[in-house]
Amino acid sequence: MATVSVIYPRAAGAQFDFDYYIQTHVPLVEARWGDAGLQGVQAFRGVAGPDGAEPPYFLIALVGFVSDEALAGALGGPHAAEIMGDIPNFTGVQPVIQVNEAL
Amino acid sequence: MATVSVIYPRAAGAQFDFDYYIQTHVPLVEARWGDAGLQGVQAFRGVAGPDGAEPPYFLIALVGFVSDEALAGALGGPHAAEIMGDIPNFTGVQPVIQVNEAL
Repeated sequence: MATVSVIYPRAAGAQFDFDYYIQTHVPLVEARWGDAGLQGVQAFRGVAGPDGAEPPYFLIALVGFVSDEALAGALGGPHAAEIMGDIPNFTGVQPVIQVNEAL
Repeated sequence: MATVSVIYPRAAGAQFDFDYYIQTHVPLVEARWGDAGLQGVQAFRGVAGPDGAEPPYFLIALVGFVSDEALAGALGGPHAAEIMGDIPNFTGVQPVIQVNEAL
């Protein structure tokens, strides 16, 4: 499956609004790309490890599409700017975005 | 679900043996932690984006456990050193490891 990973690194002084992310951002992605081959969004929130270490990332998201063509169409399509433009509404950090093939 | 993310960054000159990873490393994880609450391993290989950009990570793995206790038990248990010690057999880079809560 063609999957976009969106990884938000923690940074000193930066915030991440997990409520906004789940209640507003993910539904926005689903609404805009639901008809464009979106298969689903998985989100993983970093927590302290068993040793109490701070997590290096706020959040890791995996955005799956039914095909490479659907993924490319979504990233290059009319809704990408709106989705990317929503990011400053929940965090001040820039995510690292990558295209992946699920093994 | 309690999930360990294991993210292998690309580095200049570094290699990653995807065949070894899938054929040997993932089965090792499944064999050693299968009775310790392992729920599954998802692996995502970074590929060039629609714009041809090189992916920042070789691979993103998500190792799911049935509970926080199972995860802590596996990471602190007798097989963790063997699993971590297998990493140099397929890559020269050090992964960034984090504990996560699936949202």
